[in-house]
Amino acid sequence: MSKGLPKRSEDYSLWYNELVKRADLAENSAVRGCMVIKPYGYSIWEKMQAELDRMFKETGHSNAYFPLFIPKSFLSKEASHVEGFAKECAVVTHYRLKNSEDGKSVIVDPEAKLEEELIVRPTSETVIWSTYKNWIQSYRDLPLLVNQWANVVRWEMRTRLFLRTTEFLWQEGHTAHATKQEAVDETVQMLNVYATFAEQFMAMPVVKGVKSANERFAGAEDTYCIEALMQDGKALQAGTSHFLGQNFAKAFDVKFASKEGGLEYVWGTSWGVSTRLMGALIMAHSDDNGLVLPPKLAPIQVVIVPIYKSDEELDKIEAKAKEIMAKLKVKGISVHFDHRDTHKPGWKFAEYELKGVPLRIAMGPRDLENNTIEVARRDTLTKETVNLSEIEIDAYVEGMLDTIQTTIYQKAFDFRAHMTTEVNSWDEFVDVLENKTGFVSAHWDGTSETEEKIKELTKATIRCIPLDQKVENGACVLTGKPSNGRVLFARAY
Amino acid sequence: MSKGLPKRSEDYSLWYNELVKRADLAENSAVRGCMVIKPYGYSIWEKMQAELDRMFKETGHSNAYFPLFIPKSFLSKEASHVEGFAKECAVVTHYRLKNSEDGKSVIVDPEAKLEEELIVRPTSETVIWSTYKNWIQSYRDLPLLVNQWANVVRWEMRTRLFLRTTEFLWQEGHTAHATKQEAVDETVQMLNVYATFAEQFMAMPVVKGVKSANERFAGAEDTYCIEALMQDGKALQAGTSHFLGQNFAKAFDVKFASKEGGLEYVWGTSWGVSTRLMGALIMAHSDDNGLVLPPKLAPIQVVIVPIYKSDEELDKIEAKAKEIMAKLKVKGISVHFDHRDTHKPGWKFAEYELKGVPLRIAMGPRDLENNTIEVARRDTLTKETVNLSEIEIDAYVEGMLDTIQTTIYQKAFDFRAHMTTEVNSWDEFVDVLENKTGFVSAHWDGTSETEEKIKELTKATIRCIPLDQKVENGACVLTGKPSNGRVLFARAY
Repeated sequence: MSKGLPKRSEDYSLWYNELVKRADLAENSAVRGCMVIKPYGYSIWEKMQAELDRMFKETGHSNAYFPLFIPKSFLSKEASHVEGFAKECAVVTHYRLKNSEDGKSVIVDPEAKLEEELIVRPTSETVIWSTYKNWIQSYRDLPLLVNQWANVVRWEMRTRLFLRTTEFLWQEGHTAHATKQEAVDETVQMLNVYATFAEQFMAMPVVKGVKSANERFAGAEDTYCIEALMQDGKALQAGTSHFLGQNFAKAFDVKFASKEGGLEYVWGTSWGVSTRLMGALIMAHSDDNGLVLPPKLAPIQVVIVPIYKSDEELDKIEAKAKEIMAKLKVKGISVHFDHRDTHKPGWKFAEYELKGVPLRIAMGPRDLENNTIEVARRDTLTKETVNLSEIEIDAYVEGMLDTIQTTIYQKAFDFRAHMTTEVNSWDEFVDVLENKTGFVSAHWDGTSETEEKIKELTKATIRCIPLDQKVENGACVLTGKPSNGRVLFARAY
Repeated sequence: MSKGLPKRSEDYSLWYNELVKRADLAENSAVRGCMVIKPYGYSIWEKMQAELDRMFKETGHSNAYFPLFIPKSFLSKEASHVEGFAKECAVVTHYRLKNSEDGKSVIVDPEAKLEEELIVRPTSETVIWSTYKNWIQSYRDLPLLVNQWANVVRWEMRTRLFLRTTEFLWQEGHTAHATKQEAVDETVQMLNVYATFAEQFMAMPVVKGVKSANERFAGAEDTYCIEALMQDGKALQAGTSHFLGQNFAKAFDVKFASKEGGLEYVWGTSWGVSTRLMGALIMAHSDDNGLVLPPKLAPIQVVIVPIYKSDEELDKIEAKAKEIMAKLKVKGISVHFDHRDTHKPGWKFAEYELKGVPLRIAMGPRDLENNTIEVARRDTLTKETVNLSEIEIDAYVEGMLDTIQTTIYQKAFDFRAHMTTEVNSWDEFVDVLENKTGFVSAHWDGTSETEEKIKELTKATIRCIPLDQKVENGACVLTGKPSNGRVLFARAY
């Protein structure tokens, strides 16, 4: 709290890193690329987990747990999967250490070498489908609707807190179905769950779409995604839902006896979101004063800061604050009274702004006299004095939190609308990407070659083919070849 | 469900393994020593987690997340810790795979060798205390009360589902304090949390005690534990809480500026319970028909099975069942109506017995006529016919679930009382361990040598020095040397 954050306009990247650290969300650990998620950051992640878990269960899924390790040979079983995932992995080769000869340290025991190396899971399709083979015999065993909350490891060369870390936390759903249609429906259903969560809880508007072949998950027939726009005009993939076809069923020989008596391969899906969502949440709303949290995910929704000179004043304020807190708690609102005498009110104001507490209530001796409180909104940084005899405090705060949730969403929605630009020529395309940034809606000839060329020239990728894409004849922005609908390009995290 | 379980009296170990698999709790995976926790088993673990997490938060702790990997050198920093933990570990030596020359498989890329090997955490004291060094400067930063839910890996040669697996799930609390007394109080507080959880939720009586030096956690000054007794007369350590003194603070140089202006080493604790509790829960109560679950941890507390011949009958039963379910749900009771037409009622009865559903309600056409239901208790396997006009169904079921919870606990309590034997001679000691089994309460001369000798001769270890140990002069059961209190011996899991 010693000095202000860097400004977004000056160095967005530095602003992000500093915000993550100073707001006690996460920090780098002693292990390269692995982060420590600090208690305050973790409490936000727990709120995300709780809502997502509820939504998964409401749609019929159960949680389970599969091994951290995957035998190396499993990765080779699905041809395109190995290309996408087998490369940058943590590899366990030994299972024992021993004392060094001088007794001062430990060394790897060369005699404890594994026959087959184990990979720390980068994703669990292979180990899960090898298990499903034993769980699925008949159509009666389907659908199998399983989710796992777990840590995964992908050896990243360039890491950033929450956005790209070697180890991260996520959930991965893995379902098995008797028919293609059912698996496609599941894929879309989970995409919708993610979109609902992003919009209603994270207050972050997302575009639902399908990835082009280049950006598809390794082993999927189709990858659906939700794409969000950050304040610096870069896109962020916030969640993916994959229709796996029968690829993993074939790789792991998972067949079922159908109702009709045949023996068929099972259809699969997988879907996941990760602690990357924390990065999205931070970047979507926060400002130069710190974090801005949507009330539905804020660990502390309301903080009450007493302003006092004597212990007697503090006691009176505390008595009043406790009345208010009792009323708010009945409504399920989380409220914290900060009576620490080690910090001044101004310091506390700045701290709760940094930490994104949506609503701050200040109470001083004059407020006690007048039966008022001063209410400050984190999102707009506006203040108002409220007379407690003119309102019901619980209804007032509840309404205010709703308003903040809606306002944050609307602000992000308007920003995205402003930052989504339809372009019809290559010059425009480059100009928007360079100068305005954001989503660029443009015609594309549908080929991987063109997509790669565009990426090479501009660093922009196709974020998705929107599900609500309009049929519209046009010419590819690069090649001029015919296209019948616009896709969304952007530079991305 | 094709055939019955093995009997406990014939082969307890086989009974356990088969029960775990057939009740859909867990199974072995393709990775040696790692289990798959199946959805039904995981839903019990989730209920345990939820209660424990609530209790941790009520005692002021926050969750956080620390890296999966620990640099090899960290393990050597605390001298006794490395002896206890550094040996049987999964070691990551490489971070990349590449295609084999024939392109048919992947091999470890010899060029991607880590400079320093990483250990998959067997426990996280080292990585957490290396982090605490940066979090703690002053007494104002203390106490630091953090918990982590995580997976850990200890390379076990002989594994058993839930009881001893290479990878397991657990929580590990790690706290830092300004004074020794505060750290000791924390250690005892968390022991009490574990004991309360075991007794009130798992319905499993435990002995609270302190470990002898031989059985102490590597790096602790004192290890407190809760010990439970399984139906085969073997003890099971169900949770431990460690007073770490200043050992890890010294190893990682964690000092704080005290209120008085000095610079002092921080005092620490750590405490954990794991998926091993699942094994304890299963073994404490279950019988030859399957699982017996205490209602407070049962994912399904009540199952309603319709008995019908025609669709018309089913419809009528279902209407009645829905009325009952609505009332039970209001009380927060989880109830499942099994209307599957693919299985007969008898098959369903056996299935829910196997899965330990505490209360089963059966309803047939005659019940509809008479306004009755047949209620079967899983714990006692008794049935009664209840007239719905004579009771309030919600209060009746709620009361019955309470009764079952209490009865299961009392049964385990009585069993343990019967199976705890005071002995005063070596012959008695050996005889009880061989023939009666259970806890043996005996005098011990307090030396590690005697404890080791006893273990060698009988396979029994000191489970704990009970916290409620009575001062009583006696002679060590092996050496005859003086002792001033009894300790608990047993063969253990």
